[in-house]
Formats: sequence, C-alpha cells, structure tokens
Amino acid sequence: MRTTRAARSQDDLNGNLPGPVAGIDIGGTKIATLIVDAAGAVLGRATHASSVGDQGGAVASIAACLDEALGGAALRRSDLKAVGVGVPGRVDPKRGHVTLAVNLGWHDFALRDGLEAMLGLPVVIENDVRAAAVGLYDRHVVDGQPSDLAYLAVGTGIAAGVVLDGKLHRGARGLAGEIGHAIVELGGPRCQCGQQGCLEAFASGPSIARRANAPTAKEVYQAAAAGDTAAIELTDDVGRRLAWAIHTLVMTYDVQRVVVGGGVSHAGSPFEAPLRRELERLRDASDLAGELLPADIVDVLPPEAEAGAWGAVAVARTAGLAPGARGSEVVSHA
Amino acid sequence: MRTTRAARSQDDLNGNLPGPVAGIDIGGTKIATLIVDAAGAVLGRATHASSVGDQGGAVASIAACLDEALGGAALRRSDLKAVGVGVPGRVDPKRGHVTLAVNLGWHDFALRDGLEAMLGLPVVIENDVRAAAVGLYDRHVVDGQPSDLAYLAVGTGIAAGVVLDGKLHRGARGLAGEIGHAIVELGGPRCQCGQQGCLEAFASGPSIARRANAPTAKEVYQAAAAGDTAAIELTDDVGRRLAWAIHTLVMTYDVQRVVVGGGVSHAGSPFEAPLRRELERLRDASDLAGELLPADIVDVLPPEAEAGAWGAVAVARTAGLAPGARGSEVVSHA
Repeated sequence: MRTTRAARSQDDLNGNLPGPVAGIDIGGTKIATLIVDAAGAVLGRATHASSVGDQGGAVASIAACLDEALGGAALRRSDLKAVGVGVPGRVDPKRGHVTLAVNLGWHDFALRDGLEAMLGLPVVIENDVRAAAVGLYDRHVVDGQPSDLAYLAVGTGIAAGVVLDGKLHRGARGLAGEIGHAIVELGGPRCQCGQQGCLEAFASGPSIARRANAPTAKEVYQAAAAGDTAAIELTDDVGRRLAWAIHTLVMTYDVQRVVVGGGVSHAGSPFEAPLRRELERLRDASDLAGELLPADIVDVLPPEAEAGAWGAVAVARTAGLAPGARGSEVVSHA
Repeated sequence: MRTTRAARSQDDLNGNLPGPVAGIDIGGTKIATLIVDAAGAVLGRATHASSVGDQGGAVASIAACLDEALGGAALRRSDLKAVGVGVPGRVDPKRGHVTLAVNLGWHDFALRDGLEAMLGLPVVIENDVRAAAVGLYDRHVVDGQPSDLAYLAVGTGIAAGVVLDGKLHRGARGLAGEIGHAIVELGGPRCQCGQQGCLEAFASGPSIARRANAPTAKEVYQAAAAGDTAAIELTDDVGRRLAWAIHTLVMTYDVQRVVVGGGVSHAGSPFEAPLRRELERLRDASDLAGELLPADIVDVLPPEAEAGAWGAVAVARTAGLAPGARGSEVVSHA
C-alpha cells in the first residue's frame, strides 16, 4: 500500500507551517542552529562549540545559540513559527521529555516545556538520529525520493532512524532502530551495554579506537589511509560489520536506501571503500541480496550535510499537527 | 503515534464484511479451508492432504477444498462475502499474482483472477506468513493485544510477518521480514540462497536435518527428547540462533511480541526450552535487552492454532477495502 502522497497532502492542509522555523541539533560538545524559510532556504545559522550543559543551564544555552542565528538573519524570536530540537538520547515526544541522554547527563528532563516558556514558541523535540531520518526524507536529498529509508548514524554510538512508507517508525516502546545493539557475533566481545557481540562493540568510534589502541577512530582511519597494515585490517573489519548492519536493516525493513552519517563516516575512502566492497560481495552472492541491495542502496553523507540540524528543521514543521502526530508525521515544505 | 484504533474504526465503516468469509491456507503438501462468520465463529472446515498442483490445476483443487468446507457448513459459494488465500511464496497483492512460489512450482500466476472467475466471489491473496501475522493481530490471540508484533515462521524456510502500529508492514519491494536470510554468522556455511551464514542455513527444518544427518528435523528433536547428546547440542544451537532472530526483530522493529510458529516449532520442549533459555540470558545481560525482551516477548503457537488459515480469513475481510488497501489493512471482525 502506498498512501504516502495522499497522507502528505492531508498533512500539508493541516500541519504545514508557512513561515520560517528553527532546527537545533544538540551534540555532545556543540549546538548547531539552522533557520529555514518555508521554501527550504537557509536564512541563518549558528554553531556553539561548547557543551549544552546540565539540565539547569541547557535551556539558556540553546536559546543563546538560537538568538545568534536569529541575529544573523535579522529576525526576532516572534518571526519563527516553531522550533525543532534533536537530542542525542531517548525522547518522549508526546510529553516533550528527554527520558535519558547519557552523554549530556540528562534524565527525565522536561526540555520542551522549558524551551516553550523561555521562547514563547511551539517546540518539538525528537531523538537526533530519528530527526535526521525524517529530515533526509523531507528534503528528498536522496536520489529517487524513496518512501522507505534508514539513516544509520555511526559515531560515539550506532543507531538507525527509519522512515517507512513516508512516516517515522518509532516502535512500540520508542526504541526501534537499535541496530547498534543487534548482535553481529554470537558470543563476541562484551559491549558497554552488557550484551556480547553487539555491532557497537566493533564499529562505534570509541570501539574502533580501543581495538587499535589509538586515541580516536580518526587516527585509525588516518593510519589506514597511510598504508598501515594493522589499521587497514581493522577498518576492513569495521566495513564488513557495517555492511552486515545495512544488510540486516534491508532484510528486516525492506528499505530502499540506507543513508550513512555520523562522525566515523567522515573518514572518507578508508571508511567507505571496505563497506562498499562487502556490500558488493553480498549483492553478488544471492538473487535476494541482489534485489534488496542494489548498487545505489547506500549513500554516505558528506560531513557538510548537516543532517542533524535539517532533521530538527523537519521536526519543527510538525508543530502544527495534532499533538500525537508531532515529530512523527513528515510534513513536506513547500 | 497511535492512530490504530481510529484507523480501524474508519476501516470498519468502509471495509468490514458482515457475512461469512473463507480463509484458505495453501501449504506445500496440503490445503486447509476455514469458513468463519462475522463474529469469528467457525462454520465449516476442510483439509485436503495433497498438493495443490501446478498452475493449470490449482484453481480447481482450491475450489474443491472450499466446496467441501461449504458442504459441511450447509452453505453455498454465494453465501460467502469473500475468500482469502495464503500462499507460501512471493505475492503481488495488488495485481493478485503469485510472483514466485518455489515449492509449488508457480511463477507469475494470476491466482486471484483465476479464483474469482471460478468462484464468482471477491478473492484476496497474500503471502502465508504475512497473512498469519495479520490474523494473529486481528484475532487478538496474543495477551495484551499488542499493536506491534512479528510472526516468526520456522519450517522449510524461515520468514517473519510484521504488523506495525496495527498494519501489515510489507516493505518497499514487498520483501520485509526476510529474517531467514539475515546473517547470523559472518562467513558461516553457505545457504541455499547463495549467501553465507544465513539463519536459514542453521535453523530451518531441512538445515536441522542436514546438520544432524537425519531424515527430518522431527527425528532430531525426538532424539534430543530421548537424551541423545549430539541432538541436544544441535537443538540448543538452533534455539540460540532463533533467539538471535527474535532479538534482532525486536532491536530493529521494537515489536511487543514475537509469535513463533511453523512445522519446526511443533517439536515441543526440545524446541522451546533452548530458545527461552537463550532469551533469558540475553534479557539479563543488559538494561536495553531487559526492556525490549520481557519474559512475555515470545509466544510459541500450539500446532492446532491454524495460524495460516486464520490469517487467510483476516485477509478475506479486507476484500471490502479499496484495492490498494486489500490484504494490508487489518479489518477487525465484529
């Protein structure tokens, strides 16, 4: 069944926001804001290269970054129709709470209400990876405008945001897409989560660094690019495991595209080449894989794609929808 | 977002069928028909323990089984509102074609049109595993009436049918739920499909028999029940791999329940105990698994559940919907 287009027309009638909105992407060590008009043009942007802070100071830090972006665009807060916020953690979009964001030290934090009180604007919050998936779908930045896509974020952790038939798939408990804790090797090394053999224990940034006894994954990829044999072996293994993740996402969800982003993915060819080689090997092995993993199954985002901030913009546009649909429906911009 | 109930009320208005319908489950070596009234009561049933035959004779074989069930219920074909058919193969529900059913030798077979012409009734066809998933959801046979569930069929092949937020998830190319060809062991043994390390290469009926040098999986489970050490080791390994599949389905889809059925699952305790032991081990390993794999995550269907025929009944009830929604929407019976 394909009701996407009809459903989106309905959404456009009910929920689309004609004016500018702000999307704010909260990372572990920075805040990025994008102000975008109804046609999708960027009016302003700002990046604060500092932590958003603890729950007591976070609302003020976020507002400061937003105000800087507004200043650059010669706009006031009241010119905005809504604000979307992507948070690296578990989010309850209905209540507007950040349930748990380990890297930020947040726990059951009523971020939406705090921001709405501070800004006097409608605010929608969403998990950053899910928001990015919605943004990628909304902006049609992938060829062929697939109605079903996954965004695989490879960074400090690994997770997927999944759009099925044009709608964000959250799952029954809001935990869909936990591919980082799917098991790539039964009985494999212990993951931080407690399980054995999780994908994240092999292929997240910190795991790559730990496996190579290097300070960061970036150094490992630089060593691989310089021809270091051990680094090449390791980055080949990471590519093989991430290809497994893409294969698993496709075999379960039957998505048409898997878009790969996140800090680790910015390492260029030493990241991308082993991944593509393994996908090619899988594709050639069977008719089923050949059909489900065509050559264009994967897009690796360029570092400048700002997937997180654009995702927050897409999430902001859902502020006009009924409370239950905010953050989850996809409202196309004009 | 939970729009299930509202969506189903709408469906009830548009699509529910007040009269009796027939569900026909086509297996590799039998045909089973169930005739059910609008309240869900069984009016008649019939089972033909013979192959449905090639494309030339299949429509007549199916009609003969249906007529026998009608005779037992003292009904005529014209008393039925619709007929649903579950087929072990790839189905294009919109065109009503069986694209490929390897075990039946069918290829691009216009089964719906053939049956409609023969019976003079609306017919909806669907893949058997997906139909069973819809049937399990529709009949609320699982505790707690989950809106998100997977049906994991373990038999000659392994596949999952997935209901998300009360609707069948087909995937972009109609191939969602191919968990049998997800890779449980990178570089593992070659699967019939050509890939290496597929779940099916370890845990389907024929694979279990092959691994034990036994005629069938049933004999392997009987040997395990009788205390044979090698058989116990093998069936423990199968349980571990199937628990991996359940874990993977839950980590990706975040379904609330995984219902296990299919011929291999009828082996009783030697099938179920190792599976539950491994799930318990996974559950205890991490907070995330603890939340996603609660003790009631799995139901193993009893052999008499007739999941396939009830699935075909659920599919029949969608005949009143718009063509694009047939087979995919779930229409609750009264």
